Amino acid sequence: MGHTIEQIAAALGAEALGAVDLEVTGLAEPARAGPDQLALAMSEKFLADLSNGAARAAVLGAGSDWQALGLKAAIIAPRPRYALAGLTAAMDRGPGIAAGVHATAVIDASARIGAGAAIGPFVVIGRGARIGANARIDAHASIGAEAAIGDDAVIHAGVRIGARVRIGDRVFIQPGAVIGGDGFSFVTPEKSTVERARETLGKAAAPAASQSWTRIHSLGSVVLGDDVEIGANTAIDRGTIANTEIGDGTKLDNLVHIGHNVRIGRDCLICGQVGSAGSTVIGDRVVLGGQCGLSDNIVIGDDVVAAGATKIFSNVPSGRMLMGSPAVKMDTQVEIYKAMRRLPRVMKTVEALQKAVFNRGQND
Amino acid sequence: MGHTIEQIAAALGAEALGAVDLEVTGLAEPARAGPDQLALAMSEKFLADLSNGAARAAVLGAGSDWQALGLKAAIIAPRPRYALAGLTAAMDRGPGIAAGVHATAVIDASARIGAGAAIGPFVVIGRGARIGANARIDAHASIGAEAAIGDDAVIHAGVRIGARVRIGDRVFIQPGAVIGGDGFSFVTPEKSTVERARETLGKAAAPAASQSWTRIHSLGSVVLGDDVEIGANTAIDRGTIANTEIGDGTKLDNLVHIGHNVRIGRDCLICGQVGSAGSTVIGDRVVLGGQCGLSDNIVIGDDVVAAGATKIFSNVPSGRMLMGSPAVKMDTQVEIYKAMRRLPRVMKTVEALQKAVFNRGQND
Amino acid sequence: MGHTIEQIAAALGAEALGAVDLEVTGLAEPARAGPDQLALAMSEKFLADLSNGAARAAVLGAGSDWQALGLKAAIIAPRPRYALAGLTAAMDRGPGIAAGVHATAVIDASARIGAGAAIGPFVVIGRGARIGANARIDAHASIGAEAAIGDDAVIHAGVRIGARVRIGDRVFIQPGAVIGGDGFSFVTPEKSTVERARETLGKAAAPAASQSWTRIHSLGSVVLGDDVEIGANTAIDRGTIANTEIGDGTKLDNLVHIGHNVRIGRDCLICGQVGSAGSTVIGDRVVLGGQCGLSDNIVIGDDVVAAGATKIFSNVPSGRMLMGSPAVKMDTQVEIYKAMRRLPRVMKTVEALQKAVFNRGQND
Repeated sequence: MGHTIEQIAAALGAEALGAVDLEVTGLAEPARAGPDQLALAMSEKFLADLSNGAARAAVLGAGSDWQALGLKAAIIAPRPRYALAGLTAAMDRGPGIAAGVHATAVIDASARIGAGAAIGPFVVIGRGARIGANARIDAHASIGAEAAIGDDAVIHAGVRIGARVRIGDRVFIQPGAVIGGDGFSFVTPEKSTVERARETLGKAAAPAASQSWTRIHSLGSVVLGDDVEIGANTAIDRGTIANTEIGDGTKLDNLVHIGHNVRIGRDCLICGQVGSAGSTVIGDRVVLGGQCGLSDNIVIGDDVVAAGATKIFSNVPSGRMLMGSPAVKMDTQVEIYKAMRRLPRVMKTVEALQKAVFNRGQND
Repeated sequence: MGHTIEQIAAALGAEALGAVDLEVTGLAEPARAGPDQLALAMSEKFLADLSNGAARAAVLGAGSDWQALGLKAAIIAPRPRYALAGLTAAMDRGPGIAAGVHATAVIDASARIGAGAAIGPFVVIGRGARIGANARIDAHASIGAEAAIGDDAVIHAGVRIGARVRIGDRVFIQPGAVIGGDGFSFVTPEKSTVERARETLGKAAAPAASQSWTRIHSLGSVVLGDDVEIGANTAIDRGTIANTEIGDGTKLDNLVHIGHNVRIGRDCLICGQVGSAGSTVIGDRVVLGGQCGLSDNIVIGDDVVAAGATKIFSNVPSGRMLMGSPAVKMDTQVEIYKAMRRLPRVMKTVEALQKAVFNRGQND
Repeated sequence: MGHTIEQIAAALGAEALGAVDLEVTGLAEPARAGPDQLALAMSEKFLADLSNGAARAAVLGAGSDWQALGLKAAIIAPRPRYALAGLTAAMDRGPGIAAGVHATAVIDASARIGAGAAIGPFVVIGRGARIGANARIDAHASIGAEAAIGDDAVIHAGVRIGARVRIGDRVFIQPGAVIGGDGFSFVTPEKSTVERARETLGKAAAPAASQSWTRIHSLGSVVLGDDVEIGANTAIDRGTIANTEIGDGTKLDNLVHIGHNVRIGRDCLICGQVGSAGSTVIGDRVVLGGQCGLSDNIVIGDDVVAAGATKIFSNVPSGRMLMGSPAVKMDTQVEIYKAMRRLPRVMKTVEALQKAVFNRGQND
């Protein structure tokens, strides 16, 4: 399991210094590193910790003096987190899904399993489903009828892939995610209280009318592009007529909710517990911080960045940075927050002004 | 799989025009429709798309001229989304759960399985459980001891139904939902920091006392009425002594959290990622937008409508429309939001006034 | 299944009065109690309900006159909720996981199963995993390679325990929870829009540059201390290099999201749908109300209490009580909320002042 400093540096495209044939077996924080571990000291604040640990080799930021730090070898990483990506990829022992098809898996005779695919215990694969080459499906996952999983995809334990869902190559899906549940789409025979609330912006009181909800069925499916990642227990609903779509390279974190008909572009980052209501369209390279919320039927432009817990109720132009609830431009929101903290004090000032101006006025 | 225009219109209770014996095999958006698909052009903005697709028949809103649109046949739907419910129901091929009891299912000998029920691979059904007639239970679901599932219910893959949970007829539960987890209810032997915070509204600093949490066990269960729907990965906790209850016809979306002892009325719509803390009571026909939050032990009246991300900390009278955090009446909140956006500017005005009035006062 | 009043009082360390050898078979709310049930009337508002039910014995708060209430026996509980913990523990029939190892479980030959452990149907236990004595693992759970589960732990149906995760004694994990998914950690080769947004606080518009996300793999694991409880469908990610850690006695509710590298102290209470981004450190005895959100890389001191839906973007000193988004001290926030509700009115006052002061000034 060992790698030499030279091998690791080569894998990173980084510079190796000192005893480059030194072998390490893993990565560690500087203070906890053993003599056979490569210490991660790319950030200056960790340099002092090196002497508390026993590392003989470390990854350092540009400009660090490895010899003065008492190291025998070093790798120089000008962009630390990018180096960390390479280092952790090199050291990852993989998801631990055993090769081959487990004897307990229930695979429909009409399903096609790609060469080298691994299928874990109690996996269920439906009629007409296709599993890509070298894909790995962990225990208890279920793959619906006519669903397609790309090459080299990793589907973790207990993931639910609905019927006709299409998943690209190299997709990672964390445990418990549900891809292709039915959309949440209901209609009343007559106008409902919520339709009236939207029309009047809440100005009229809702009458206590009887209303029962009729289901709009989801005939569409879900399409995930290549290199998509989906977090644990995230739920993506199928579309009503067309498909719900997630573009190539987009990453979703845990417990994210994506409603029916939503279309998300390429290379987005959707953080934990974000929710998007149905039929919203999100551009490319959009970054939504944790717990952001998006209304239904809105359009978010390319390169939008929203801080955590931003609630977006209307269309957003490309390149906009957002914060707050309701969302406004980040710098405007920072000013609003400052003003809100001063608000109780300013209220008193206004009272004093009111007294001074209007009382005096009355005395004139 | 084909249906004639006449058959579809009859199923919808709608008017059929033109070549009513034309047969279609599915639904499509107008621009993508093939010659054998029924185009959905109920909204005026989609009418122009008809000429981009190849549809020979379409569903149109009231007043559209089907002949001028180059169609051979049309169905007229005065309430488009309600028509969509009927159309998608007619075209839905169903959840794809094979008939019969799969050989791998583990079913306790004391469980009773209704006539026509379908039980998927690796399903576990506990002691004394009852499954209704024509219910369909998909792969990997588990049904606890003495739980009861109604007739025609659909329990999707990986759903967890706890012991003694009772579920009505025609209920739909999406994958990964957990019905009947234990309530989150803990108590410290002495007053906890959170009890003190509630008593003082946070005015006193919490002392760094030792406190460890003792579990209040959940002896109650969960009862879901008829025609309830539950979204993917939603969690509904059992009650402490009595049951957590969801009334007939109420629909819950994905990733919703319902605490112990909560009681929800009939025909409510609870959107994605809504959370309700324990012992809260929600009336009939309540609509909660995505990511709404409800405190524990509050009462929400009938016909309340809350916009997305509304956080409700106190009782709400019937018919109220709410928005914001903390929730206030929707129209009041709209005024507050407008004022907040003007706040940084108004702060400057107040400063100018202060200078003008009080400086002048000092000079008098 | 019956217990005498005397036995129950002894288990609670409480006082028994009257016919202490009266036997009861369960607990009930006063209005619904049958003659063989112990009515829970610790709160004064429930005393009147006793006459609507048929209870012969009740648990009462200090100072209640059991004989005047028509009871034959009573237990006096000075701290009602603490008594409820004892009462419900005594009456709980347990999670209903059958003893022994089910024939369908797939257990790696190298795994070690403790004495008295119960393993349910279709459970998968990986290479080198260890299950503690008397632990109970319910149907469809999966335990990864080299994971360790403590003694007397209860792992409910469909829980996913990743490779190398370590779980303490007496831990409860509700259905569908995922312990040890991969962290959500990605980096672009060049500076991303989100890095730029953080640097500029959103003042510069993000250019529409190409960016694709490279995965930082999670080599660390998750460690849960003793007496931890985890709610249904909660997700806890593994650390990048070190472990994500949850201290002894800490309780997490349903649908909670804990990012990679987070460290939570002892005896915390983390309510439903709380989310914490990566690398945040939370002290001991912290209480976070439902739907709270925490930014990445912040430090929350001991004994912090945050009201529901509080969004915390920066470090918090010990003992602080917080409310709002962005979080401020609870009493300050109460003042801000009051001021916000008056804001539209105050805006009009400011306009009137502006007119009075500056118009008059112009006329002088």
